[in-house]
Amino acid sequence: MYVLFEGIDGVGKTTQIELLKKEFPNALFSKEPGGSELGKEIRRFILNCNLSSRAELFLFLADRAEHIQKVVKPNLNRPVFSDRGFISGVAYAFAKDTLSLKELCKLNNLAMEGIYPNGVIFLEISKTCLKERLKKKKLDRIEREGIEYLLKVQKIMRRVLKTLPLPTLFLDASLPKEELHQHILKFLEGVLK
Amino acid sequence: MYVLFEGIDGVGKTTQIELLKKEFPNALFSKEPGGSELGKEIRRFILNCNLSSRAELFLFLADRAEHIQKVVKPNLNRPVFSDRGFISGVAYAFAKDTLSLKELCKLNNLAMEGIYPNGVIFLEISKTCLKERLKKKKLDRIEREGIEYLLKVQKIMRRVLKTLPLPTLFLDASLPKEELHQHILKFLEGVLK
Repeated sequence: MYVLFEGIDGVGKTTQIELLKKEFPNALFSKEPGGSELGKEIRRFILNCNLSSRAELFLFLADRAEHIQKVVKPNLNRPVFSDRGFISGVAYAFAKDTLSLKELCKLNNLAMEGIYPNGVIFLEISKTCLKERLKKKKLDRIEREGIEYLLKVQKIMRRVLKTLPLPTLFLDASLPKEELHQHILKFLEGVLK
Repeated sequence: MYVLFEGIDGVGKTTQIELLKKEFPNALFSKEPGGSELGKEIRRFILNCNLSSRAELFLFLADRAEHIQKVVKPNLNRPVFSDRGFISGVAYAFAKDTLSLKELCKLNNLAMEGIYPNGVIFLEISKTCLKERLKKKKLDRIEREGIEYLLKVQKIMRRVLKTLPLPTLFLDASLPKEELHQHILKFLEGVLK
């Protein structure tokens, strides 16, 4: 089982992943970018260098390819949870680049070599709630780009998830964390069946 | 004017580029990978890490995108010569990966965002001559992959160049270096017109 946690910064992906670790002690918890050795270096570049948007797109695709081949694929005999994946890849790129959603999905398909998640847990947040949460966080480059940008990305993520035939759990991130956790457990039961 | 020097390792691209520097003192001489800041890091990864072939492909594309946007494009008011470019990109990837030439050309087109070279200088070598030359060189990973591999890549480069509508100078790398230099100068006169 390979499951993605998706959503923009501040929606509470990390909190939900932490809660899940107790339920799935044998699972692999990974992330993009940064889940592979290459990914760590790529993450460093992207945050510190002012790369052209096309170069940035291909770096994220390289990270995705390496993560899928070296981390996800060899561990598919147990649950693999990833903090972000190609949904973020497509959405952030669409927000910055001139390529179409179709082209971006195609590029991501090449990077994943056919290994799609069995389910996606998508946390969505309102503008008011997001503002409140980001105040408390140390901001990195992507977060500094602003609330409006993040909400635009969130909208694209929803659009991509509505188009793709992937089992997806849409969650309101403002719900209490324990309630969200219960929804996630129930969804995962269905994915595991 | 943007011109590529193409050919596998050992064909004498560096020698010809050095001879050209005297003729074009105002030109920009660059290379792929490694012509941009990002490229230097990417080159280091690719030579030292055992990446999946798909990740490697996307890293080369990221380097190409960055090189074209940050180095080639801002200098197109003067001659830009690059030691390798997308021809190497397509050929090395085709030799390793499962993607078709058409798909690889399309990916490279995305990386270049429509900026194609005005001419390509392609140096070709025979097996005997290549063996002789590689003996004298310090070998990096790509070269260590062997003579047969390099010759296979050379064949793909020729095939790509024969298909694309780019002005190309096909040269026999075993000719004396001064003679090759004269052929190149004459070709560049034509490209400049």
